[in-house]
Amino acid sequence: MRMTDLIAKKRDGFELSTEEIKWMIASYVAGEVADYQMSAMCMAIFFRGMTARETLDLTMAMMHSGEVIDLSAIEGVKADKHSTGGVGDKTSLILCPMVAACGVKIAKMSGRGLGHTGGTLDKLESFPGFNIGIGEERFIENVNRIGISLIGQTADIVPADKKLYALRDVTGTVPSIPLIVSSIMSKKLASGADVIVLDVKCGSGAFMKTEDQARELAEGLTRIGRLAGKKCAAVITDMDQPLGCAVGNALEVKEAISVLKGEKKGDLLELCLTLGSCILIEAGFAADVESARAKLLETIESGAALKKLAEMVEAQDGSAADVYDPSRLPLAPVQVEVPSERAGYLSHIEAEKVGLISMHLGGGRATKESDIDLSVGLVLHKKVGDAVAECESLGTIHATNAAKAAEAADLLRACCTISDAPVERPAFIKAIIR
Amino acid sequence: MRMTDLIAKKRDGFELSTEEIKWMIASYVAGEVADYQMSAMCMAIFFRGMTARETLDLTMAMMHSGEVIDLSAIEGVKADKHSTGGVGDKTSLILCPMVAACGVKIAKMSGRGLGHTGGTLDKLESFPGFNIGIGEERFIENVNRIGISLIGQTADIVPADKKLYALRDVTGTVPSIPLIVSSIMSKKLASGADVIVLDVKCGSGAFMKTEDQARELAEGLTRIGRLAGKKCAAVITDMDQPLGCAVGNALEVKEAISVLKGEKKGDLLELCLTLGSCILIEAGFAADVESARAKLLETIESGAALKKLAEMVEAQDGSAADVYDPSRLPLAPVQVEVPSERAGYLSHIEAEKVGLISMHLGGGRATKESDIDLSVGLVLHKKVGDAVAECESLGTIHATNAAKAAEAADLLRACCTISDAPVERPAFIKAIIR
Repeated sequence: MRMTDLIAKKRDGFELSTEEIKWMIASYVAGEVADYQMSAMCMAIFFRGMTARETLDLTMAMMHSGEVIDLSAIEGVKADKHSTGGVGDKTSLILCPMVAACGVKIAKMSGRGLGHTGGTLDKLESFPGFNIGIGEERFIENVNRIGISLIGQTADIVPADKKLYALRDVTGTVPSIPLIVSSIMSKKLASGADVIVLDVKCGSGAFMKTEDQARELAEGLTRIGRLAGKKCAAVITDMDQPLGCAVGNALEVKEAISVLKGEKKGDLLELCLTLGSCILIEAGFAADVESARAKLLETIESGAALKKLAEMVEAQDGSAADVYDPSRLPLAPVQVEVPSERAGYLSHIEAEKVGLISMHLGGGRATKESDIDLSVGLVLHKKVGDAVAECESLGTIHATNAAKAAEAADLLRACCTISDAPVERPAFIKAIIR
Repeated sequence: MRMTDLIAKKRDGFELSTEEIKWMIASYVAGEVADYQMSAMCMAIFFRGMTARETLDLTMAMMHSGEVIDLSAIEGVKADKHSTGGVGDKTSLILCPMVAACGVKIAKMSGRGLGHTGGTLDKLESFPGFNIGIGEERFIENVNRIGISLIGQTADIVPADKKLYALRDVTGTVPSIPLIVSSIMSKKLASGADVIVLDVKCGSGAFMKTEDQARELAEGLTRIGRLAGKKCAAVITDMDQPLGCAVGNALEVKEAISVLKGEKKGDLLELCLTLGSCILIEAGFAADVESARAKLLETIESGAALKKLAEMVEAQDGSAADVYDPSRLPLAPVQVEVPSERAGYLSHIEAEKVGLISMHLGGGRATKESDIDLSVGLVLHKKVGDAVAECESLGTIHATNAAKAAEAADLLRACCTISDAPVERPAFIKAIIR
């Protein structure tokens, strides 16, 4: 087989065979297919697309390029969740304990964040001592004992995606549905769960700008998951403004805890109930949405979900006390309010730019090697649709010093559009794809 | 500027600016833009195309990536010719002396051939002693004195094309009209001629399989040539069968000499008259096609064109005697006829496969480093439309030994389709684009 021929075949609109796709990925990982050939192939795929069969073959070939986690030593139904990435997304910190408290096993591997804020792993490390590298044996033992563990991805999971994603990132070939689907699903499938729910963000702060694009991706993801024998569902959610109020690692953990304590409602809780319902239904733990939501709400009212988070933190070398008393978590030395310059209604918050503020404060990584400051970030006090009085605070900046805080405050003010006329609150859950 | 942004811009259907194209080519040649980015860009160009302005900018940026030949020391009008490449194409060997004999200066730089047969330079080296590396000073002096010189391309002409073509060749990005146009025209423009004629082949033995594709390429080439301030014309010719009868270096030289001697007519002479007319008209040496053709035919009847070839060979360290008596040229030790197995009419000759036979006999290069046997090849005795008797020879194989000859004879027979019904001779000159 010659890669040049395969590129020409895809370029001219023909379907690649299973053998061809297997050969391509194996040869690419082995260094026998060059980056300059793979990037041309990715661009041809961008224009020509892939059939479901080709996308499945690509996903499976990528999955088998490295270690495939065997969760068979864990009893019961194992669930996993993936988000396409958004600003202020601390969903996993709430959803996973809720679902685990209902009896579905959460054995989840996450990556570190790159960009706006840290990933779930970075957020968890806001708990002093929290260990994301407890090893596969303790991971499985913990899940069997308490029903939940979140750890870092092993180095050898889906090496094809690591290599391919780095290439796509610098060759303008990221926004291709089959390439995104195979990148996400190869990792989810390699992680071994039985039930996979996907949170596909759409809007100005998300990779998919329109609901149509998000729906196409969500359908692609669930189709491939099901073809690979998994239970799958996807939720399309709005990312025209940050999710919840906190953006920044420890700040997001604190917000997650306040949801788990039942103190905070709103979009964040709604998203966790929606994703959680999908998991319980797919896992066979609930017959319909109403009973699923009731079970999930019960984990908050009873304190079972908060207790589950505390158990996990303790089982991974942290302290349960930090969960019950989040004032013990990292706190930035400087807090500054951001008063509104005018009265009116908050009509838009530029989510992506809010994420960049947190990154510039030190809360996100510009490069893979960057250090991250877990304490910094910001907390929004207003969301789209809220009335704002003159001088009322739009949010609080958490920074390492006053100069950075002042700069961030100006940036945050510039991210917020205030209109004279009342503004409708946007629909947050756009669609559920089963 | 970031290459990733330029790729995304082209991918999404936007026009690249002059500055962006200049930066891209300069950075690519400097090694600052990676091959994997350029290949993705080439694939995006394949799908999105380029406007005439973008193609001109790309051509000029590539031309200026290296040495631009200054022919101002040569008096008079300088003409150059380019062929998109075909099997048995010895046109330059006939056309250049004819045109030079009419007074248009031929100062032509050629590349070596890769594939089927050698290039013009390889063919010229069939004249013992012929020197394709006489240096720029002697080159210009020769053109001023005798009106013609053909030499090898200097190493530093259009380095961007050398790098880019090698990349396109292995990334499925060769068949893109703007990329082909900029590749060809950057070299032609860097070679410094005032008049450029292009022979665009179409058919099963050519890169452009259909007349529509060939016309699109021909129009692209002449448009860019004119936008760059050159006189330009293109001829679209049939390559459904080899051009003329000989395929192989010395064999093609012998056929060219027989045309220059007036012994041989047919498609080859017709092509030279057509291309030559374009040159004479564009150069202002003839008012119309009839007078141009008359002048060109006169160079054959008077022996002036043959004399011009002899002068050139002598001026480049060969012997004029080899031109007047081509039996002195290399001759393969074994000649074998290829009798037809049945009677009928020759309805098709697979040009590309005929070229491969010559290559396998040793007459072409499989890689840049391959040595070439100037003596081997084959001579067709029948062309499409000719009647064939049973056992009548379809052609003669010239080989180094009997085994190779027998193998080639079988292959040649397999290239020829013989039908019972008479077959019309195909139109050879498809169109002239001015």
